[in-house]
Amino acid sequence: MPDIATIVREIAEEMAAAPDRGQVATYIPPLAAVSPRRFGMAVIEADGTAHLAGDAEAPFSIQSVSKVFALTLALGKVGDQLWQRVGREPSGSAFNSIVQLETESGIPRNPFINAGAIVVADMLLAGHAPREAIGEILRFVRALAGDDTIFIDEAVARAEQETGYRNAALANYMHAFGNLAHPIERTLGVYFHQCALAMSCRQLALAGRYLMARGRNPDTGFSIVSPQRARRINALMMTCGHYDGSGEFAYRVGLPGKSGVGGGILAVAPGKASIAVWSPGLNERGNSLLGTLALERLVQRTGWSVFDPGADLGR
Amino acid sequence: MPDIATIVREIAEEMAAAPDRGQVATYIPPLAAVSPRRFGMAVIEADGTAHLAGDAEAPFSIQSVSKVFALTLALGKVGDQLWQRVGREPSGSAFNSIVQLETESGIPRNPFINAGAIVVADMLLAGHAPREAIGEILRFVRALAGDDTIFIDEAVARAEQETGYRNAALANYMHAFGNLAHPIERTLGVYFHQCALAMSCRQLALAGRYLMARGRNPDTGFSIVSPQRARRINALMMTCGHYDGSGEFAYRVGLPGKSGVGGGILAVAPGKASIAVWSPGLNERGNSLLGTLALERLVQRTGWSVFDPGADLGR
Amino acid sequence: MPDIATIVREIAEEMAAAPDRGQVATYIPPLAAVSPRRFGMAVIEADGTAHLAGDAEAPFSIQSVSKVFALTLALGKVGDQLWQRVGREPSGSAFNSIVQLETESGIPRNPFINAGAIVVADMLLAGHAPREAIGEILRFVRALAGDDTIFIDEAVARAEQETGYRNAALANYMHAFGNLAHPIERTLGVYFHQCALAMSCRQLALAGRYLMARGRNPDTGFSIVSPQRARRINALMMTCGHYDGSGEFAYRVGLPGKSGVGGGILAVAPGKASIAVWSPGLNERGNSLLGTLALERLVQRTGWSVFDPGADLGR
Amino acid sequence: MPDIATIVREIAEEMAAAPDRGQVATYIPPLAAVSPRRFGMAVIEADGTAHLAGDAEAPFSIQSVSKVFALTLALGKVGDQLWQRVGREPSGSAFNSIVQLETESGIPRNPFINAGAIVVADMLLAGHAPREAIGEILRFVRALAGDDTIFIDEAVARAEQETGYRNAALANYMHAFGNLAHPIERTLGVYFHQCALAMSCRQLALAGRYLMARGRNPDTGFSIVSPQRARRINALMMTCGHYDGSGEFAYRVGLPGKSGVGGGILAVAPGKASIAVWSPGLNERGNSLLGTLALERLVQRTGWSVFDPGADLGR
Repeated sequence: MPDIATIVREIAEEMAAAPDRGQVATYIPPLAAVSPRRFGMAVIEADGTAHLAGDAEAPFSIQSVSKVFALTLALGKVGDQLWQRVGREPSGSAFNSIVQLETESGIPRNPFINAGAIVVADMLLAGHAPREAIGEILRFVRALAGDDTIFIDEAVARAEQETGYRNAALANYMHAFGNLAHPIERTLGVYFHQCALAMSCRQLALAGRYLMARGRNPDTGFSIVSPQRARRINALMMTCGHYDGSGEFAYRVGLPGKSGVGGGILAVAPGKASIAVWSPGLNERGNSLLGTLALERLVQRTGWSVFDPGADLGR
Repeated sequence: MPDIATIVREIAEEMAAAPDRGQVATYIPPLAAVSPRRFGMAVIEADGTAHLAGDAEAPFSIQSVSKVFALTLALGKVGDQLWQRVGREPSGSAFNSIVQLETESGIPRNPFINAGAIVVADMLLAGHAPREAIGEILRFVRALAGDDTIFIDEAVARAEQETGYRNAALANYMHAFGNLAHPIERTLGVYFHQCALAMSCRQLALAGRYLMARGRNPDTGFSIVSPQRARRINALMMTCGHYDGSGEFAYRVGLPGKSGVGGGILAVAPGKASIAVWSPGLNERGNSLLGTLALERLVQRTGWSVFDPGADLGR
Repeated sequence: MPDIATIVREIAEEMAAAPDRGQVATYIPPLAAVSPRRFGMAVIEADGTAHLAGDAEAPFSIQSVSKVFALTLALGKVGDQLWQRVGREPSGSAFNSIVQLETESGIPRNPFINAGAIVVADMLLAGHAPREAIGEILRFVRALAGDDTIFIDEAVARAEQETGYRNAALANYMHAFGNLAHPIERTLGVYFHQCALAMSCRQLALAGRYLMARGRNPDTGFSIVSPQRARRINALMMTCGHYDGSGEFAYRVGLPGKSGVGGGILAVAPGKASIAVWSPGLNERGNSLLGTLALERLVQRTGWSVFDPGADLGR
Repeated sequence: MPDIATIVREIAEEMAAAPDRGQVATYIPPLAAVSPRRFGMAVIEADGTAHLAGDAEAPFSIQSVSKVFALTLALGKVGDQLWQRVGREPSGSAFNSIVQLETESGIPRNPFINAGAIVVADMLLAGHAPREAIGEILRFVRALAGDDTIFIDEAVARAEQETGYRNAALANYMHAFGNLAHPIERTLGVYFHQCALAMSCRQLALAGRYLMARGRNPDTGFSIVSPQRARRINALMMTCGHYDGSGEFAYRVGLPGKSGVGGGILAVAPGKASIAVWSPGLNERGNSLLGTLALERLVQRTGWSVFDPGADLGR
């Protein structure tokens, strides 16, 4: 096997040359303005070795990738009671579907579809003003990445708020079932700001290290979550992290991952690496086209799939 | 960590004492007649060491667990063209739901729900009489397990056929969309016989070894499927192996697994072990209640979750 | 107002000249072979005066129009207990949708969608061989029309049977819920033969007279159904007679009516006329394009809409 | 046949004695506070003769009955272009279902479910402040009834606004599809005020006279809508006026009607009478239990069903 550094460099070169780059999201101007030529990749190994390639240092809108951090934070606050208000099954439908809510009494299928993430945001609000809850998320992500330059892009947050009718529909609908505890605009305020987090691939991969490392922050050695909870968050990313493309991602890549409409994906190779890729063009399921392809190749070349015995069995 | 033998023995003792044992399936008499007291477990490690406990040698109706073997066989026959007729996404609905077929033009969501497995059975029929296709499946499973005593329970197959209106509905519906190539009764004949395979936990765990071993049969060293295909079948088991309880199984157990209504579950710890459990009482999603619990405890005590770095990181 | 004879003649002339004639059904050869140029119309007034135009004497496949006669017969056999196995609400979906059955425990929404009509056919079988039940339907329709030349087109019945996978899916599905009492192939045998009734517009309008005449056969004076039941069948035709185009038909035509995929429509102007139209080209909802247009014009020119006070208020 | 006055008086007596009175709506306090003992009935014959019984003079919250007047007004404003934004088919689902909107691109099935009525309210806003649009509706209803004491119950409007999360979900959802032209809170402001119209049975029956009278206001002789439009509004009431109980209402009553959650129903016997009933207890579909029963008896005793030839054929 070539070394990781070579693999990452080669993949980035292949992605730079890829002709089909998918469709950039256009529902808000700040996303529509991003060039489909961008591609970044950051791999942080378990020992801390970092491999960066392409636009790995360029901040982008992490969007739904933030749902992983928000869930982690909310589980810390309310514990497994969280699961009384959100399910943990794949939804079998699109990220913003409202149909399932009607037949299942306003309980979203999982915390990684929009409806579920809005409930999680509502939990983060408990006892807080929206500004404080947003600040808490930002501080958490900065601490995970060990980088205080991570910021929330207010232009993105504002644009989301202005066009977020479908999310407002989800929020109102769940409120009708009693599954939101705060005024809609506050809960959505937290949600839209969380989605507007701007991070580079390097920052994102750093922030995701606790998920490969049994819940610990390798910098500090402090436990972010228990090993069991880290496993479980990984399991949720595996089954639900890519909306109605989650099965496909598991099939092709075989790592827990969470995608965002900005083109970012955070993927976790437990015990081996935390990985972030970014390319703004999306496939027909709304997940990064080249990001997925880059991860597929990385796993093929490293043997990091969780479904592969890897070095344990020889190769 | 205690050794695997001890862990398996202790879990079997715990399960024997469990008060809540779920509901045994009653839709056909041969299943309804099985005692909820039964519990068996077989763990075959990568090196071939076998740990058996409880009713590990008692044959039971593997039912939908057979879908894993049928899929493997069909992939060998038709290759990735199989995916033009079956999807690979979690369905978000029950094992025998027909709703999704209507909106998705008769293409089942994945090969592990009934509709998908019926299409796979239809592929195994190509160029064969039903009797031959059934024989081929039986020979395949016997070869995987290295055990020629595995048999098809004709009483079960007949009972399935007599009461299989819902599967007949699925088959007719898919035929209406052109997604079955053979007469309904032939395709269902293959499907019902495949579901009627009777195997013990030991036999089932033996048959599943290729999925932990990069596609090879450890007895013979021969490749059953390529390493990539083994990974992918594992991925499908992870996201789709337990119907609308797949997310929950991934969350609690964290292994690729496939359950059957007879109470059996085959689970795979890549590079570590092939595992079969059996207890006929089901939970509300139709998956073995104690089987799932036993696997959850096994993984907790061995660290075999695919989402856990395990020994790689120290513990 | 011009007299009815003139109105009927003019409408037939207009329809003969209509450029857009819809799409002829092609799922079975006997239907696909019919020319879209055909148009027939028969209006039988309450006093027995008959107005025929175009191909009013040509027999065509009445298909789902037969559901009205089968329902009438079944109500006579089992009475209002029928409604324990079939609903009476518009389905909001296509004629052959299976989705609603899953969420409503195998009870079809109404007797005029395929699933509902199959349950009705199953009721007609009670205590009979299929041949007898079919004979009973044929005798009933012949008696209603006072015409023993009405026949069942065996070629159509056979073609339906050979391609009826979707209806077989519906039947099997309802059997799984316990909502069919006979073997699938018998129930479908009755259903397919009933749909294969061949009648001319004249015969169809004659057969429908009891629905405009408080349940009595004007020829004989005998009561076919009670006045209340005649009203209620009319109500069902109004709300459910044109599948997911029923609202549109009520809006445009304003008469109780039942359409068939062969291009026929039976419509009832209570107290005024029984009307049959036929033109094989269908609109996008599967209802006769020119048949609907002809009825719309007839009602505009006669004031026969049930939503119009008509002569009672002066005009 | 006894005279209408006697029939109305007797029905009111029967309803006063009815033991099962249904469940009063409780989602807002002003509705929950109404006694289930209330029952009122007003029948205005075509010649203007009025028959009042029970609480016929007591104002109640007409709620969704207002959708008939709002639709009439909107059709006058925008004409048949209205149908580009709202369908005219029965929905087959509950009054506040959101599922259908997802699969049909935000176009509500008909103007009498909540989603459709919200779009109609949005049309009434065009070029107006909410206050003006509300004033226009109020003036219209007052003019129809010839009674300037009709008012909007501000306490009801406020309560609707405070608890209207599900309607807000519908509105946001349709806005996401581009099917609302104004800010959500304005459109809902109009909608909630329209639903808060308080009218007595007498006033409601007076306001509905144009629908039995070919579109004319009998007081003034002025045309409110064309005869064709009156027929069509009646047709919509018949197929869609009682949500997923519309088929049942047509079956049992056989008149165009529109119900409201306050327990009121407006029904139209074309050419014969405009009828309003009120009893706050609802059946399981959300329609007035005794109101429906009273109408059923009225029609049985008068022969006013539109599906009955009535006097035209002798009786």
